[in-house]
Amino acid sequence: MHVDVQFLPFPPSPDLLTRRTVVVMDILRATSVMVHALSQGAAEIIPLANSEEALQRAKTFPTGTTLLGGERGSRKIEGFDLGNSPTEYVFERVSGKRLILTTTNGTKAFHSVSSGREILAGSFLNVEAIAQRCLELGQDLLLFPSGDEGRFSLEDAVCAGMLVEGILKKGRPVDLTDAARAAHILFKEFENHLVEALRLSNHGKDLIALGLGGDLAFCAQTDVTDIVPVFADGVIRAH
Amino acid sequence: MHVDVQFLPFPPSPDLLTRRTVVVMDILRATSVMVHALSQGAAEIIPLANSEEALQRAKTFPTGTTLLGGERGSRKIEGFDLGNSPTEYVFERVSGKRLILTTTNGTKAFHSVSSGREILAGSFLNVEAIAQRCLELGQDLLLFPSGDEGRFSLEDAVCAGMLVEGILKKGRPVDLTDAARAAHILFKEFENHLVEALRLSNHGKDLIALGLGGDLAFCAQTDVTDIVPVFADGVIRAH
Repeated sequence: MHVDVQFLPFPPSPDLLTRRTVVVMDILRATSVMVHALSQGAAEIIPLANSEEALQRAKTFPTGTTLLGGERGSRKIEGFDLGNSPTEYVFERVSGKRLILTTTNGTKAFHSVSSGREILAGSFLNVEAIAQRCLELGQDLLLFPSGDEGRFSLEDAVCAGMLVEGILKKGRPVDLTDAARAAHILFKEFENHLVEALRLSNHGKDLIALGLGGDLAFCAQTDVTDIVPVFADGVIRAH
Repeated sequence: MHVDVQFLPFPPSPDLLTRRTVVVMDILRATSVMVHALSQGAAEIIPLANSEEALQRAKTFPTGTTLLGGERGSRKIEGFDLGNSPTEYVFERVSGKRLILTTTNGTKAFHSVSSGREILAGSFLNVEAIAQRCLELGQDLLLFPSGDEGRFSLEDAVCAGMLVEGILKKGRPVDLTDAARAAHILFKEFENHLVEALRLSNHGKDLIALGLGGDLAFCAQTDVTDIVPVFADGVIRAH
């Protein structure tokens, strides 16, 4: 199994993607929100790139079935039901609901890799379940950190490295690209204090400055759910 | 001083570049060749993206003044004087000569960042001299690993991290992006056995398979020269 990590969130060639399992990661906070929301019983998540599109799309569904969530500048969008803190996505609020989500980096990333053979949403919350599912699928793997407005993001790279570790631990023969090897080294550096990677990161510092530091500790929890979110036909559902 | 590393060799925005010192790094092997060739007395180096252009350009200079060097598929180009092994670029061969160089990654990288305020060529061979020069220039810094045909390259990232270390050691206040921090962690991982980063890298393995493994040990030598190559108006000369 060939394992690669794309450190900057540029759309890879569709031809390459069709032969790979792709794991999108936006630790702070889109994929952490998605994994947590599905674990709390959300029926499905529609990731959209812009907020106007999200508002229009919400109107096409029956009243009471759908919640609008997401952020711009890390803050809840005006007129939306929920922001982008995973702790807002509790069972009482989201169970049985459709979520329409739009965020700065993460929701766009799913559309960048939409030609992937299988597209999963990874986070620290479900990394072991994702590693297991990638091995079951048996395809070459592209880990796709969403980055921070086009820039490299430390916390996403560390999570990619933890997924590399999860796959290596299974003992299957694995061929790592330089980027996969580097992600693994970055994970090892923070293995015993993951939250530190989030605190040191540029995006983590911004969230702390906005009073959203609690989200860092939440998103740094590992393997608290075995939910495997799958993106297909524009919708994310639990496998 | 703001220090960033661009992990994938996509052209950054010219507007951003005009305010930064840019250090191009292609450890295996273009910038190692450039640094070594200048240390052996080469007068100047013209980096060009393609071999046909290189052949045409060479014809515009008086006979005996100019040597053609470079590689395709890591091998010397037909009709060229020199390949891309730094050990070919000895005093007896290159002293006083103009070199026209074309390689798969490194020579292109200089043209990608040509709007940089100051553009330097870095390698393990001259990392301390480059760190010193970056501090003298005092501008924000963009470290630009040339990568491996568009992919992340481990050895270039480790060299970028060693340059970050060189700058941190001077004690000047420095603001690291996530990418600069990651490069620094990667350097620390290989600090006491740099050649191992080159041996583990995808491009290093290819060179070993082609019988060019000796170049890895050569390019992993640190601070053997204080040459600072500067790229301006299409030509690289020692500062």
